[in-house]
Amino acid sequence: MGRVRVGVLISGRGSNLQTLIQAAQAPDYPAEIAYVIANVADAKGLDHAERAGIPACVISHKDFADRAAFDAALDAALRKAKIEIVCLAGFMRLLGKKFTEDWRDRVLNIHPSLLPAFPGLDTHRKAIEAGVKISGCTVHLVRPELDDGPILIQAAVPVAEDDTPETLAARVLEVEHRCYPLALRLLAAGAIRVTGKTTRHGATAPKGSLLNPGGTG
Amino acid sequence: MGRVRVGVLISGRGSNLQTLIQAAQAPDYPAEIAYVIANVADAKGLDHAERAGIPACVISHKDFADRAAFDAALDAALRKAKIEIVCLAGFMRLLGKKFTEDWRDRVLNIHPSLLPAFPGLDTHRKAIEAGVKISGCTVHLVRPELDDGPILIQAAVPVAEDDTPETLAARVLEVEHRCYPLALRLLAAGAIRVTGKTTRHGATAPKGSLLNPGGTG
Repeated sequence: MGRVRVGVLISGRGSNLQTLIQAAQAPDYPAEIAYVIANVADAKGLDHAERAGIPACVISHKDFADRAAFDAALDAALRKAKIEIVCLAGFMRLLGKKFTEDWRDRVLNIHPSLLPAFPGLDTHRKAIEAGVKISGCTVHLVRPELDDGPILIQAAVPVAEDDTPETLAARVLEVEHRCYPLALRLLAAGAIRVTGKTTRHGATAPKGSLLNPGGTG
Repeated sequence: MGRVRVGVLISGRGSNLQTLIQAAQAPDYPAEIAYVIANVADAKGLDHAERAGIPACVISHKDFADRAAFDAALDAALRKAKIEIVCLAGFMRLLGKKFTEDWRDRVLNIHPSLLPAFPGLDTHRKAIEAGVKISGCTVHLVRPELDDGPILIQAAVPVAEDDTPETLAARVLEVEHRCYPLALRLLAAGAIRVTGKTTRHGATAPKGSLLNPGGTG
């Protein structure tokens, strides 16, 4: 069985991209990172792709009149590269309704909080100001709504009394780097069942799974 | 130094009341459960108080014209019993602004979620329907807003794929029973510092602490 071709969308340093590239080097990993798209030309994460020999391109949102046109360009590039699953890794553009519906249950995002707490930007600052003692990360399927969509995996970390947004971010990033490869593994293996907002993790890839509709894989 | 006198408000079975009573039997515990008030006459938790020899009474909200009058009756009973800290343990009435301001930083509540996620009633059903993989409990100081106020302690538990609200509630209750006695211990020892919505846990009870303003205890 061929490995599932994954495209990763980045805007910055791409630390989760790097983690996914490393995870996909395992012989039994069911996905390969086959394509990287950055929406800003100097995204440092592009270096990870280059070092790993992964095709990459820049599609700048500034080159398009509106979100729909930008999304259509992303879609075309992903399809041309025969991408089956998309992972957002610090990708700072919202994807529109058409894109997220066309790629329904094929787009993963990671967010540095225990959703539904603290969606959106400035997550760690919000968590610290709210005085929570536990934060974490969430890997979820992308829906048109911001930081919504069925959750595949969450992990919790303690918030320390002296935490700044930076120190908390670093602690959460450690569990992000464990969760994202695991979530992609489950999705690529066809192990995820989605019912409304809930997901189940199957042990194998049975018939009718998301990425193996005919059970022939 | 005398132990801090704690009043516990209940509406039902009072499982957290029972946990607090047990914790307070430790010789070094800085608080004693000195009074129990139920707002419903047949609250089963009253049995815990009776077995432990703790004075208890019923103050039914139905006997009062409005919340302010009910709150005033609670306040009078607590003051008469020389209560210094109030713990809500499954107490199903909202306390009004005057009560919560008069008892500011002296009223603890426990909520069966990782606040700010899933405030209010039907917590576990909401968590399951939201598809979260991690839930937990929160002990916080009470403010006029529902399930808001500075957090003292949180604990996380996994949500299982087959969880019902009942099975999740049972798992969360286990950590509630660890967190509530610990939070009360910290507050009664004067170890909690509140700044806005955040709290810090001191190791000792230094001068200027909440319950030891002069540092003479």
